[in-house]
Amino acid sequence: MTRVQDIYPSDRVVLREVGLRDGLQLVKTFPSTAAKKDWIAREYDAGVRHFEVGSFLPAKTFPQFADVRDIVKTVASLPGAHGIALTLNERGVNEALESGVAEIATVVSATEEHSRANANRSRDEAIANVERLCRLRDASAHKPIVHVAVSMALGCSITGAVDPKEALRIAERCYAAGADVVGVADTVGYSGPKQVAELTAATVKIAGRKPVCVHLHDTRGMGIANAAAALDAGARILDGSLGGLGGCPFAPGATGNVVFEDLAFLCQSKGFETGIDIEKLIDVRAILRSEMPQEALYGGLARAGLPRGQQPVTA
Amino acid sequence: MTRVQDIYPSDRVVLREVGLRDGLQLVKTFPSTAAKKDWIAREYDAGVRHFEVGSFLPAKTFPQFADVRDIVKTVASLPGAHGIALTLNERGVNEALESGVAEIATVVSATEEHSRANANRSRDEAIANVERLCRLRDASAHKPIVHVAVSMALGCSITGAVDPKEALRIAERCYAAGADVVGVADTVGYSGPKQVAELTAATVKIAGRKPVCVHLHDTRGMGIANAAAALDAGARILDGSLGGLGGCPFAPGATGNVVFEDLAFLCQSKGFETGIDIEKLIDVRAILRSEMPQEALYGGLARAGLPRGQQPVTA
Repeated sequence: MTRVQDIYPSDRVVLREVGLRDGLQLVKTFPSTAAKKDWIAREYDAGVRHFEVGSFLPAKTFPQFADVRDIVKTVASLPGAHGIALTLNERGVNEALESGVAEIATVVSATEEHSRANANRSRDEAIANVERLCRLRDASAHKPIVHVAVSMALGCSITGAVDPKEALRIAERCYAAGADVVGVADTVGYSGPKQVAELTAATVKIAGRKPVCVHLHDTRGMGIANAAAALDAGARILDGSLGGLGGCPFAPGATGNVVFEDLAFLCQSKGFETGIDIEKLIDVRAILRSEMPQEALYGGLARAGLPRGQQPVTA
Repeated sequence: MTRVQDIYPSDRVVLREVGLRDGLQLVKTFPSTAAKKDWIAREYDAGVRHFEVGSFLPAKTFPQFADVRDIVKTVASLPGAHGIALTLNERGVNEALESGVAEIATVVSATEEHSRANANRSRDEAIANVERLCRLRDASAHKPIVHVAVSMALGCSITGAVDPKEALRIAERCYAAGADVVGVADTVGYSGPKQVAELTAATVKIAGRKPVCVHLHDTRGMGIANAAAALDAGARILDGSLGGLGGCPFAPGATGNVVFEDLAFLCQSKGFETGIDIEKLIDVRAILRSEMPQEALYGGLARAGLPRGQQPVTA
């Protein structure tokens, strides 16, 4: 477990930039490979170290991730940077292992209904996929971190409310299957801070010494409040995307991920050192504006700037 | 105190629509009087009962509030509705008293620097103004509620960080001067949930049986997180504006108040009954879009709608 604790230390907050994957999941136009590399390089310069770089999906259907192997290498070349790639099936897992990516993420739905509708498989089959991935990890030379996101853990686009006990039971099975990190995901932004606090605290409890990630969407304006609740409940890994990039297929016009810049400000205001220079981070938005001019970017810090007298953390 | 507790019961959350005042403070175009009345009527139908209706300021400089007496009457005519008007000086106080408005609000800055720069007076002079207002209240027939907002209580556009002890001392002096309600205001949206929780808890403590209002701005995306923190710390009166209407003179392009619809959703998600039908509330935005088409409206609920399976509270 030493490697996992190096990447996700229990005594500090890690903010992960998931814009290059989750932020690009549904877009029609996307940044060039060169622009993605520039995005990563400039966020790295701003202090970001954890990047979800893409997904191992068929390039025909998801051309935005066709360069995922190249982007994996880009992140790997930066000292201390950590790359994560998403996989959804056996083929993707095999390709991700071959790519040498430092962390392989996969998904198990909290509800049977969503699992079948979204991935055409039962939750048992999804967990069997996790077990297989963990066996391959153990047999590999570079032993990537295995991350399992429990999607729809805080509300389901098909069934509505989700029993927290049920979401917790799935999280527990993912840890038992060998996951190094389990992520509690509010995939469609249904929850408020009370629900996030309760599920996070319960997940931290069953996780033992393994880290817990909380992956929130800002669909209904609760993103930052939910992130604050997750931190208060003991989560130390949170996801966000620059400018809140990323829509939601279940809610047209809805925003996607939590705004990364605002998330960094939240952590700073709560006294958590993230190592991120917010002003430098805001400047990186220029890449998105130029590469994806039709995508709405969100965020309070980018509009208003840091409060008077608050210097960047790393200044 | 019976009257105050009728309007602001300690056992439930009151959300106040401040868009008709704070939301219109800085706009160039504004709704017609008829549209304001429609705005109020439709929000009343959605369950809103507390409306900041305008400000007693010179109509020459602030034509958006020229109809304040008329709007005071509109709110007074709705059973159970409660109107609030802002006053900044002696003349305004006198006019507000004459108008018969149910609540008169005034402002004391948390910092001496802001008090002098913004109102050209010391904090002592501002508090003397509160004392005078309270004497006039006691001598009046209709005895309006006196509300004092401590502006810049969570950060100052002139001095930067504000010592919470200093903000608390001003709040304490306002209660001592006779204020029925004191509002802790993050006027320029500088703070995070930790600061809001700490100052709210301390204010609730000194307030005794008198209510505490927390007035937040969403300038840096922390609005809903800060509102959640205020609720957790014991505040039961929160302000917001439809669509987050309202800019900030100190941060061009910055959003203003907390989005009212999202605030209602937050309360609902935390189990606080507000009596507000969120879907009906969202529909009222049509008035703002038609009357103020150049103003940006914000909010997650309006974009994404309520989660599947969550019916309106009052349905």
